[in-house]
Amino acid sequence: MMDQSDFPAPRMGEPYLLTPGPLTTAAEVKEAMQRDWGSWDGDFRAMTAEMNRRLLAMAGATRDAWTCVPMQGSGSFAVEAMLGSLVPRDGKVLVLANGAYGQRAAQTLRYLGRAHQVINKGDYLPPRGPEVAAALDADPAITHVVAIHCETSSGILNPIEEIAEVVAARGRKLLIDSMSAFGAIPLEVGAIEFEALVSSANKCIEGVPGFGFVIARKAALEAAAGNSHSLALDLHAQWAHMEKTGQWRYTPPTHVVAAFLKALEMHAAEGGVAARGARYFDNRDVMVAGMRAQGFETLLADRWLSPIIVTFFNPADPAFEFDRFYELMKAEGFIIYPGKLTVVDSFRIGCIGRMDAAVMRRAVAAVARALKVMGVTDAAPPPKALEERARLAA
Amino acid sequence: MMDQSDFPAPRMGEPYLLTPGPLTTAAEVKEAMQRDWGSWDGDFRAMTAEMNRRLLAMAGATRDAWTCVPMQGSGSFAVEAMLGSLVPRDGKVLVLANGAYGQRAAQTLRYLGRAHQVINKGDYLPPRGPEVAAALDADPAITHVVAIHCETSSGILNPIEEIAEVVAARGRKLLIDSMSAFGAIPLEVGAIEFEALVSSANKCIEGVPGFGFVIARKAALEAAAGNSHSLALDLHAQWAHMEKTGQWRYTPPTHVVAAFLKALEMHAAEGGVAARGARYFDNRDVMVAGMRAQGFETLLADRWLSPIIVTFFNPADPAFEFDRFYELMKAEGFIIYPGKLTVVDSFRIGCIGRMDAAVMRRAVAAVARALKVMGVTDAAPPPKALEERARLAA
Repeated sequence: MMDQSDFPAPRMGEPYLLTPGPLTTAAEVKEAMQRDWGSWDGDFRAMTAEMNRRLLAMAGATRDAWTCVPMQGSGSFAVEAMLGSLVPRDGKVLVLANGAYGQRAAQTLRYLGRAHQVINKGDYLPPRGPEVAAALDADPAITHVVAIHCETSSGILNPIEEIAEVVAARGRKLLIDSMSAFGAIPLEVGAIEFEALVSSANKCIEGVPGFGFVIARKAALEAAAGNSHSLALDLHAQWAHMEKTGQWRYTPPTHVVAAFLKALEMHAAEGGVAARGARYFDNRDVMVAGMRAQGFETLLADRWLSPIIVTFFNPADPAFEFDRFYELMKAEGFIIYPGKLTVVDSFRIGCIGRMDAAVMRRAVAAVARALKVMGVTDAAPPPKALEERARLAA
Repeated sequence: MMDQSDFPAPRMGEPYLLTPGPLTTAAEVKEAMQRDWGSWDGDFRAMTAEMNRRLLAMAGATRDAWTCVPMQGSGSFAVEAMLGSLVPRDGKVLVLANGAYGQRAAQTLRYLGRAHQVINKGDYLPPRGPEVAAALDADPAITHVVAIHCETSSGILNPIEEIAEVVAARGRKLLIDSMSAFGAIPLEVGAIEFEALVSSANKCIEGVPGFGFVIARKAALEAAAGNSHSLALDLHAQWAHMEKTGQWRYTPPTHVVAAFLKALEMHAAEGGVAARGARYFDNRDVMVAGMRAQGFETLLADRWLSPIIVTFFNPADPAFEFDRFYELMKAEGFIIYPGKLTVVDSFRIGCIGRMDAAVMRRAVAAVARALKVMGVTDAAPPPKALEERARLAA
């Protein structure tokens, strides 16, 4: 008997995207892109206002003190806009890095010529409260801390509450890159103290890619005039223009915005952040259990596994080849993701997008068939992978 | 009898966009967005390669010496990427401005801290060869010239050949903002000497908004390492990554790219740049004649009227109100565009997008009905508008 998903499958020939975004979206989301809008027109302005309203509500943010500013481009464009606009030119940033996105934040600050310091935890250890506290205590010049909520390089869910607490206690400002978490992992103004968060359309809210958004304290934006190194990425100018006209400052990706608005409606209809997160946790649990049953090992201990994406070590069996595995999985209707670790070979499987546990069970069954085709009898990783994991957990 | 367009009308309730983009696109273009792609996957990489190949061919550019680099965001993001990456930090730019987009190029250079000088022709006079030559002769420090191909503030088609000639003769490098012209007005490597051009997905090629692209000499990109002020907008880094991996450096707007690829196919099927331009010229001629027959006057003399968008003076009749006119036209199924002039009131009507002369005739008839509803009996502009026009033409 076919394991039945609660959601319709993608169209014939279209694989599920088990990736950290772009991801598999609902047909209704894509259907919302079947018309053209004038970006100056009142109908589109109303769509932008509704989008901002829903995003603020999702963060538990009131409109008197908080604002939402969308920014064209990929998520990294919105991150750069946030850093370049909200950190003053004489500010100093402490970057908490444990993977590609933390490294990219630091790289952005280097381009911007903003003073910064990096706590580099390597590929997959979480930055912890005490070490953040020590760094802040040691350097009073630090004005801002940048934290990655879910670092998809490894799939780690960083302890954002713990970090936010020490940052707030020391009177510094926290900027959260919640790209891959916002909408599925609770991040609310009342519960976590922060200055701004950034996320994008094509992650846990399940829209299509084309823009990101920053949810920030109004006071932060008001103070941001003249900070930006870039006209296009000037978050203050984008905000001021939108406040005044209801329009995006430059041409918005109108169809992507329409799709995102539909995705926001569907997110609410599903039950908001709690329900979305519960579905992703379920996806993850089913998938990880099914992979472990075949001998695969996760990079991370259970406590750090995010419900967004999970890293698995490649099997030690020499019959395993990632490129072949990728193509076999694609032929089965699943796009997986390569690994991003430096020490040992790995690959990643995403848990987000328009899919549920039934789909994850089918993905796990497809993995089993792919191993069989390749002649891999045991998916256990090489000893050095497990040694590395043990060394880091110590 | 209904005046029959060669193209299917937009879906019920969806107006035509008589605007400079986003514009009315073909149903096939939007249908191309009805699936999800993994941005890392080979299928999507092949789409990116095909897009770049088609764009280079449209510019008559060979792949040994030229390259095409897409950039996420609106057209202004791509313009900033071009300026910030191709102009070295010790370069100096001569900006030829006659409207909002020339001004924006200068504003971008101010943000970037790049030395520049502006020839400001006001709202609607073209920069001419001799004055550009004089400016270049007077200042040997100038390394680059930025010209706007079609300045949509007024709708003027600037004399790019004339400008290119004097720039080349003086050994300077020409950067062309051909946002609103490329794909409909010929701009070919063999005919016009330039260093790079920039355009975007949602203009004359009739895609949907979400990214732009720069077509540049490879030598220019090779020399551009380290120039950029911005990580996200670093054109060199985007190019180098794409050359190495076939992928966009950061998440591409996958659906918008798919739509654009379909738009490129339809552009070729229609007959390429010549046929696209001919249709737009026809749209413009039919529309302008129909407007003039009602007493409307164009801001520009015929020789400078672009086939992209046309500015009309508001009627002097006090019964004319732009906001009401806009809503009446919208109710008739046409979105028009407000004016951008400083001296006299005006509005604009675009000629680009998936529409032909039959649609323009219907738009003109809708204008007549709107005037009647408002009680405007004569669409002639106030004398001061005509005086201003005469003064400038002198």
